[in-house]
Amino acid sequence: MAGIVYLVGAGPGDEGLITEKGKICIQKADVILYDRLVNPRLLEYAKASCEFVYCGKLPKNHTIRQERINSLLVEYAQIGKTVVRLKGGDPSVFGRVGEEAEELAKHHIAFEIVPGVTSSIAAAAYAGIPVTHREYSNTFTLSTGHCKRNNVEQELDFAALSKSKTAAFYMGIQNLGSICEQLILHGKNPHTPVAIIEWGTTGKQKTAVGTLQTIVEQVHANGISNPAMTIVGEVVNLREALLWFEKKPLHGKKVLVAKATAQSSKTAAMLREYGAEAWEVPHLVLENIPL
Amino acid sequence: MAGIVYLVGAGPGDEGLITEKGKICIQKADVILYDRLVNPRLLEYAKASCEFVYCGKLPKNHTIRQERINSLLVEYAQIGKTVVRLKGGDPSVFGRVGEEAEELAKHHIAFEIVPGVTSSIAAAAYAGIPVTHREYSNTFTLSTGHCKRNNVEQELDFAALSKSKTAAFYMGIQNLGSICEQLILHGKNPHTPVAIIEWGTTGKQKTAVGTLQTIVEQVHANGISNPAMTIVGEVVNLREALLWFEKKPLHGKKVLVAKATAQSSKTAAMLREYGAEAWEVPHLVLENIPL
Repeated sequence: MAGIVYLVGAGPGDEGLITEKGKICIQKADVILYDRLVNPRLLEYAKASCEFVYCGKLPKNHTIRQERINSLLVEYAQIGKTVVRLKGGDPSVFGRVGEEAEELAKHHIAFEIVPGVTSSIAAAAYAGIPVTHREYSNTFTLSTGHCKRNNVEQELDFAALSKSKTAAFYMGIQNLGSICEQLILHGKNPHTPVAIIEWGTTGKQKTAVGTLQTIVEQVHANGISNPAMTIVGEVVNLREALLWFEKKPLHGKKVLVAKATAQSSKTAAMLREYGAEAWEVPHLVLENIPL
Repeated sequence: MAGIVYLVGAGPGDEGLITEKGKICIQKADVILYDRLVNPRLLEYAKASCEFVYCGKLPKNHTIRQERINSLLVEYAQIGKTVVRLKGGDPSVFGRVGEEAEELAKHHIAFEIVPGVTSSIAAAAYAGIPVTHREYSNTFTLSTGHCKRNNVEQELDFAALSKSKTAAFYMGIQNLGSICEQLILHGKNPHTPVAIIEWGTTGKQKTAVGTLQTIVEQVHANGISNPAMTIVGEVVNLREALLWFEKKPLHGKKVLVAKATAQSSKTAAMLREYGAEAWEVPHLVLENIPL
């Protein structure tokens, strides 16, 4: 009997933002094909016999081709496996879920889409920025910042984007200069506030704020790179009043917790609650770290 | 000691789409202020002593005012309660999280935002429509369809909206005619496909498909009303190949399961897995339903 494929959104980074349904899919998976930006702690929900296939960047920046991923999903399902395709954020938002589902449908393989929390909305919220607001924004546009041939001017309609009250660009650091330039060229006020959030919703989250004119400089000054989310719009100004995640007492701190008893994962969870990036590691590893 | 307020997204309807973090917040809450579109089964995670405050529509269509909700959040936190403000979908997307967080910040009350799966992306995915696709859509705009003074032409920038490859309008049934008219007026092809999804991601989900020219008629013919999501764009065409949720064997069926042992909730969960809208009810209730 043929298996089934669950196309699952892992959420934006914080492992607490996986959905209940997504977690259950991971728990029952025979095979998990996962992307680079999936929080690795989520893979710990899998059963001991689960097979893992990494679909992210390989050494020398090669990536496993989309066609290969599609075939693997089909092949595993055809031999009766319960397959989970685990993607960062939401699978429908620049996650190619359509292409994978089309391939599965073509081969008459059962699939389900399990939406996830999408990274732009969540990263903004963790940076103190609500993407919509009755006073400042009644439209919010999600756009890829990482285009084919790295040619944002041709790929995106900046006349439209410049009119969206709030706009998010996914993974747009390389093209940030062009994005800001094009938005200004198409009539957006150069003083419109911009936030760039690196590793949003994780203990490593770092945010730079500026305007369409100054943000490129800010990004360089703060050493910010991908994975990053760009948020453009008046709502960015709310951050000053609404900061919460980045001001947690242990935010930005890395803590290694010796994995010993059930207690250690409780300790790690509590440290995360206070904003730390906490990792549980075996005693042996800890002993070998020069402190 | 002052309490804390968690501003939590309950997700789009399917109770499996709550986040892990959101569920934990509900479990530890002393008070939950919840909206009309929150799946009531999520409230069952709360502890026995938890107090519930309904913030949705009241009889005669009165609603509790936003100012009143803001004050309640502040007051409960000031007497030391752990407060959850539970909203349908994601709290940042037309959920007024900004206004509530501003009020809390003003009173120096600790808060956290717990993002949720937003309804447009999830309802579309459950209707077989990925909101972005490498071939058809590299921008996706979320817009409210339910404007102040019911005046969409004035409130929304249709010149921009008509250029977004995919556009979602939240709760726009009343204004559907004007929305389609304005999009066509601003240059959108009248044959652009449109889907309206009622009660998306729940057992009651119902979808009507048409074009900017025909959808109003389709909606009337199918008796579709709010809560509904409008999706406009070429990606709607993918639905034909990618239908999965609405073709589950028990989709559209309502089942009452006698609440007896732990077994009954397993049965209900399994029925939901097959697409039914399953409710557990006490034996006594079942005996009094005329069948």
